Amino acid sequence: MNSSVVRYTLGQVLKIESALLLLPCVVALIYFDRNGIYFLIVAAMCGLLGFGMTLVKPSSNVFYLKEGCIITSLSWILLSFFGCLPFYLSDSIPSITDALFETISGFTTTGASILSEVESLSKSITFWRCFTHWIGGMGVLVFLLAIIPIGGGSQINIMKAESPGPSVGKLVPKIRSTARILYIIYFVLTIIEIIFLALGKMPLFEAINTATATAGTGGFGVKNDSLTSYSPYIQWVVTIFMILFGVNFNAYYLLLFKQFKKAFTMEEVVHYFAIILIAIAIIFTRIVGNYQYAADALRDTAFQVASIITTTGFSTADFDKWPAVCQTVLVFLMFIGACAGSTGGGIKVSRLIILRKTIIKEMTSYIHPKSIKKLKMDDKPVEHEVLRATNVFFITFILIFSVSILLIAIDGKDLVTNFTAVAATMNNIGPGLSTVGPTQNFSHFSMFSKYILMFDMIAGRLELFPLLMLFHPELWKEMYSHYIRKIQ
Amino acid sequence: MNSSVVRYTLGQVLKIESALLLLPCVVALIYFDRNGIYFLIVAAMCGLLGFGMTLVKPSSNVFYLKEGCIITSLSWILLSFFGCLPFYLSDSIPSITDALFETISGFTTTGASILSEVESLSKSITFWRCFTHWIGGMGVLVFLLAIIPIGGGSQINIMKAESPGPSVGKLVPKIRSTARILYIIYFVLTIIEIIFLALGKMPLFEAINTATATAGTGGFGVKNDSLTSYSPYIQWVVTIFMILFGVNFNAYYLLLFKQFKKAFTMEEVVHYFAIILIAIAIIFTRIVGNYQYAADALRDTAFQVASIITTTGFSTADFDKWPAVCQTVLVFLMFIGACAGSTGGGIKVSRLIILRKTIIKEMTSYIHPKSIKKLKMDDKPVEHEVLRATNVFFITFILIFSVSILLIAIDGKDLVTNFTAVAATMNNIGPGLSTVGPTQNFSHFSMFSKYILMFDMIAGRLELFPLLMLFHPELWKEMYSHYIRKIQ
Repeated sequence: MNSSVVRYTLGQVLKIESALLLLPCVVALIYFDRNGIYFLIVAAMCGLLGFGMTLVKPSSNVFYLKEGCIITSLSWILLSFFGCLPFYLSDSIPSITDALFETISGFTTTGASILSEVESLSKSITFWRCFTHWIGGMGVLVFLLAIIPIGGGSQINIMKAESPGPSVGKLVPKIRSTARILYIIYFVLTIIEIIFLALGKMPLFEAINTATATAGTGGFGVKNDSLTSYSPYIQWVVTIFMILFGVNFNAYYLLLFKQFKKAFTMEEVVHYFAIILIAIAIIFTRIVGNYQYAADALRDTAFQVASIITTTGFSTADFDKWPAVCQTVLVFLMFIGACAGSTGGGIKVSRLIILRKTIIKEMTSYIHPKSIKKLKMDDKPVEHEVLRATNVFFITFILIFSVSILLIAIDGKDLVTNFTAVAATMNNIGPGLSTVGPTQNFSHFSMFSKYILMFDMIAGRLELFPLLMLFHPELWKEMYSHYIRKIQ
Repeated sequence: MNSSVVRYTLGQVLKIESALLLLPCVVALIYFDRNGIYFLIVAAMCGLLGFGMTLVKPSSNVFYLKEGCIITSLSWILLSFFGCLPFYLSDSIPSITDALFETISGFTTTGASILSEVESLSKSITFWRCFTHWIGGMGVLVFLLAIIPIGGGSQINIMKAESPGPSVGKLVPKIRSTARILYIIYFVLTIIEIIFLALGKMPLFEAINTATATAGTGGFGVKNDSLTSYSPYIQWVVTIFMILFGVNFNAYYLLLFKQFKKAFTMEEVVHYFAIILIAIAIIFTRIVGNYQYAADALRDTAFQVASIITTTGFSTADFDKWPAVCQTVLVFLMFIGACAGSTGGGIKVSRLIILRKTIIKEMTSYIHPKSIKKLKMDDKPVEHEVLRATNVFFITFILIFSVSILLIAIDGKDLVTNFTAVAATMNNIGPGLSTVGPTQNFSHFSMFSKYILMFDMIAGRLELFPLLMLFHPELWKEMYSHYIRKIQ
């Protein structure tokens, strides 16, 4: 285990967080918000600590998948810890557990809140709350890769651990360039959304916050009713951008280089849009009768479907009161999630395509036991390694999911609450059904359950294994023996 | 595709069913029950058809896994179709869909009923209803293997398709002897249970029916309140026998040959008992406060836990009214199911052990990427083929499960009903929660949903793939081209 590279990279992450914490300070200066000082204090803490941790260069730059996992999970925990301090210090969220919950929910782009009242939050706090979505959406380590040269060709292991999807999407041979391209697309799309929202007469501050929360497929809003009270135009803009941020970013890369045919025939993207259309069709036909105008029903349907499948979690209608079929469809979308290589959570469309193909292949093997046809995706054979990892991912997902439900059941809440609370956090969505429905929040859970749900949020965002690795005893033995050697 | 062996074996199955249908005729004779005549008619139909289908010997005895799957799924459908006719003809169940539902529920040892009143059923009908559990528990094809010599060494493919568990349990090298040993253990255990029940002053007719339903881990009872009104002694006897029939029969085989140590250290069996004890501990501590005597709470807890984990489905308490934690634990047990190589349903303990080990192995591979340690079970390495099949089984299980919920959601029932109705049928348990709770039944579902649930029951009993194979277009193409060749 190369512990020095872990220490060094975590230090870099803290330095980045320190820089990012200066943005709410700027917001505070503009709006004469007293809470700015807390951001400055925490930024200084992060900066100093980060500086200290990066004083000594790592003995070796080489790291493997295990270091990648450890770096990723530890940096997300560190980020969240320091990120929650402004909430806590400013007394915006008086409980440290709740502040941590809110921050992890932010960074993991979940958007599950423990707050029932968000309109009274100060400007800098509101900004930071939404901005954590933007940071977590593309990933802080991917950002690090984009700006700082680390290691010699082994950064792929960080990318693997932080990026969503069954296989890491290398757009171009160099990881650093890939990370840059991703962040540029991300940034530009966010700016375009801000412009479109501003054109709809949304105040600029709200437009920026809404756009950063949409971009990260997060879901924290600036109003207590999420986006319900905004104009139809704004609701449609957000709907479209939620869907766009759920698309595999490889597609945008292909579009940039004018490979239109390739972009529009990407198997995952085609399935993604097909699922969205089918879900809208089913729900729309069921609820249209309750509306005076079909256009309103369509807008509410499209918004909620887009919000759930992309795991954003904004809402404009209380779907906890929709018919059971509609709720079932939404629960399905929770698990499906967005595309790999997007900022969305969930199992991911491409994984489900692979799983479906695995089943068909299994059936065919019953008929032709000796057939060795390879499973294909976008006409390219899928590596055996990716297949195996996808299967194991799915199994692990279901098992963690089940155990989490069992653990939070101790609180004694109803089955639908427990099921959808875990579904909404592990898939990084936000609202669930029943007592965690779109008009409710997560504050009523016990402290124990809140920590379970925090674990689920990070596990979901990092796609399980990087976080699980922290619990592997062998890893700690290795780390321990490393230090023992050092001391001797 | 060897169609002639399919035709021939299905004919044999019908002949067996014809013979089995004579048993309720005997019951009818003893109790002067007019409905006996319907059993005689259907027995004659099966006998004639079976005779016709076995007139011409198959051109070749060789068959592969695909023929094994087709034979298995078609014989279960045939069995159920003819098995439901007495219910329908005698007007005991006036709707053919309901009669088929009840029969499939019987053969698959599910025990989900569409009847709210069973005490008014005639003796022969009651007997047949419970006896279908006994037939389906060990499997009619395994019975066929035990008594009739088929094929040259390829019967393993039938055994594979019909027997529960990740790998087929060959106790002895010869399949025929294995099948015989299994049926002998099964028969003897059933007789012992009848004796114990009779010792508790249960009327013999009720004892026979209760024992056959326990043996198959079925769940159809002779009383409307299942086993609630029986004495504590009888409830404990049934509890113990439910647990015994959920044990891997290999353990009994080992016991017979005095390999006590090996039997008592079988990994699956040890886990099975551990899960039962933990579940009892959790539920008991939660409900004991509601009882006057702790002994009653313990009996109710043990009974319900045994009933659900073995997927039997008897009840002595309305667990739909238990606290949410207890319900969550029970829903977990529904999925865990009994041991492989038992008559119980569900995912099976051994599969879950394999899945857990798969996850641990995956984590270790992050630390030692080049390690090639094999996964072990009972100190023997698990074949790669079994691992792969287990993973694919689990994935397919979850997907069929999800799609079924989506389809029955069209009825517009609440989420808990839909979820547990599919869980209770696919895992072959019987009762679920909410409107399919232990004091309710399945009659309120639409015809469409009933057929979905019937599919789930057979899919669960045959462990998915044999039934899914029926929907593989290539298979039908093959069958079609075979007949075209014949005609030319």
